[in-house]
Amino acid sequence: MIFRTVAVDKQTKARCGELKLAQQGILTPVFMPVGTQGTVKTLTPVHLKATDTRIILSNAYHLCLRPGEKVIKQLGGLHKFMGWDGAIITDSGGYQVFSLTGLTKVSDNGVEFQSPVDGTRFFFTPERMTQIQNDIGADILMAFDECVPYPCEQDMAGVAVKRTLKWAERCLHAHKNTQQTLFGIVQGSVFRELRIECARSLVDMNFEGYAIGGLSVGEGSLLMNEVLDYTVDYLPDDKPRYLMGVGFPVDILNAVERGIDMFDCVVPTRNGRNGCAFTSTGRVKILNSQYKEDAGPLDKACSCYTCQNFSRAYLRHLFLAREILGLTLLSLHNIFYFQNLMQLIRESIAKGEFKDFKSDFLLKQSE
Amino acid sequence: MIFRTVAVDKQTKARCGELKLAQQGILTPVFMPVGTQGTVKTLTPVHLKATDTRIILSNAYHLCLRPGEKVIKQLGGLHKFMGWDGAIITDSGGYQVFSLTGLTKVSDNGVEFQSPVDGTRFFFTPERMTQIQNDIGADILMAFDECVPYPCEQDMAGVAVKRTLKWAERCLHAHKNTQQTLFGIVQGSVFRELRIECARSLVDMNFEGYAIGGLSVGEGSLLMNEVLDYTVDYLPDDKPRYLMGVGFPVDILNAVERGIDMFDCVVPTRNGRNGCAFTSTGRVKILNSQYKEDAGPLDKACSCYTCQNFSRAYLRHLFLAREILGLTLLSLHNIFYFQNLMQLIRESIAKGEFKDFKSDFLLKQSE
Repeated sequence: MIFRTVAVDKQTKARCGELKLAQQGILTPVFMPVGTQGTVKTLTPVHLKATDTRIILSNAYHLCLRPGEKVIKQLGGLHKFMGWDGAIITDSGGYQVFSLTGLTKVSDNGVEFQSPVDGTRFFFTPERMTQIQNDIGADILMAFDECVPYPCEQDMAGVAVKRTLKWAERCLHAHKNTQQTLFGIVQGSVFRELRIECARSLVDMNFEGYAIGGLSVGEGSLLMNEVLDYTVDYLPDDKPRYLMGVGFPVDILNAVERGIDMFDCVVPTRNGRNGCAFTSTGRVKILNSQYKEDAGPLDKACSCYTCQNFSRAYLRHLFLAREILGLTLLSLHNIFYFQNLMQLIRESIAKGEFKDFKSDFLLKQSE
Repeated sequence: MIFRTVAVDKQTKARCGELKLAQQGILTPVFMPVGTQGTVKTLTPVHLKATDTRIILSNAYHLCLRPGEKVIKQLGGLHKFMGWDGAIITDSGGYQVFSLTGLTKVSDNGVEFQSPVDGTRFFFTPERMTQIQNDIGADILMAFDECVPYPCEQDMAGVAVKRTLKWAERCLHAHKNTQQTLFGIVQGSVFRELRIECARSLVDMNFEGYAIGGLSVGEGSLLMNEVLDYTVDYLPDDKPRYLMGVGFPVDILNAVERGIDMFDCVVPTRNGRNGCAFTSTGRVKILNSQYKEDAGPLDKACSCYTCQNFSRAYLRHLFLAREILGLTLLSLHNIFYFQNLMQLIRESIAKGEFKDFKSDFLLKQSE
């Protein structure tokens, strides 16, 4: 078992746990910065460590297209390739196959598509995606799933769930590396019956962990919370639960409340590169002219490298002058902010004060 | 006095010295990475420190246009603004005024031009450029000079020398901050009489250090070495000599041999961002397909962060995938390489082996 529960909130489904991965204990709820192409954009592994990041998400689809999983395997696996001794989870790339590629042919056997990098034709099957992730050597790999867009007719979502379940079995069968852990992915769009059917069937297959996919794709937070409300009830308490691609701090708080343990999102890095910083008193758009001579840090309450060393005025200057260091410093700060939030969430759960923490947090953000 | 000589080579004019700046002793010959806009591109101050960089070059022209010297002064000066506790030298921006701006009107009083950033009209005089650099708070400031393009008629170069000398006097007169050191700049294109006249007149004004400007602008290394050969003889032994905007390792070796103590150049950072790494066995163009599966570091002989942690294959992947981390890691390596070269140069001079070191170095590069 890679997961154990450490503390359970009495008022909500929130819980603290510990993941054992890459010879390390990783406390949950955990946030996993995104390193799609084998690098968390703009940051060195030393930067990442300084944000208290313990696990990152990479992407089998992208790494297969470039540089190719064989190169990564030959060079000793992704940890060594990217110089990261923390844990790594890889998404299989189901989402990317369906969202990024044009000419896609889906059959029960798999997906045929053309590489947007160089036009090469690929045929991805559950077996192939499992082998790719085995070669990449991530600590956790994800089953290959079919993602439907939102909104989506129930019939179409149902077909995708059936296929996702068949593919999940094939991934389980193909997965041979006992050093790696395979998670199943619950699909079903916003349809209760489909989500429950998918969750139940995956649980019957006995994965080591369960992800909830196909959310945060435009359905809005009300519908997302609703799906989480009923889906989590069909997932076992003793396995980790991962909400894919989520999210903003408020989304994370809502999902933790509903029993989610793991999160990934591009928000801290992408917003950082766009000049938007998360702070304890709300977001700071660093290009705003009000910061022109602002000698203060992004966030007075923050102890990250950026806030300890640089003023808002300097960061604004870097963004105005299109200097790369600005992207690095805001990405670093934002990930630190997210990791600090997770730390506070874990502490509040352990103290039985999660509900209060959440209300206080949301109040401060709107000040 | 900010400079003392530590060792003098017997076979050449090469020498080791020590600059006292920002309460630090900085050994010469020294290489100063370029941080034009108040950041050495892509690197944090921590990265810079790790390359053994002790002094960087920034640029008064650029900082005046953006964010404005008043902002920097108000925020405590450039060191604090950019979080750099090493030394800083600022170029006045004479070179930039003449090379980067379109509608320029030059008179004996100064230069009128339009900001390429936002179209604002500026009038730069020696007094104004001195005040800007005083406000920025660099440890060394440069006199405001008139730079001529190459090639240039002797008459035109002569007019620019006369103006440069008058402006140098006005800078000396305007410079009030005794915490900062002002250097004069020798101009004169490739004309012996002009260079000697300019050097002599500046020495009569008794600057704390002397720069040689207007070289490495297309005249080629033979002519550059010739200018250095005769110009340095007219500069005093007890003051530092700075060759502006130079250069590649071979240029640095040639200039050290001719008695130069200080260098700045964009080469390590710009080439790094273009995927070109300097190594002990020559340059590595990281996008070359031969590095696709190369598990070795950029340079086996290098102990920088990049070489200790990342393979050529990974760095190539970062560049192919247009990931910013690649720019950072190659810039870091290249500056480390330059600083290591300077260290080896200083050691060879101290041991009286500079000539041998230079020959060996050039031999290895061509292997």
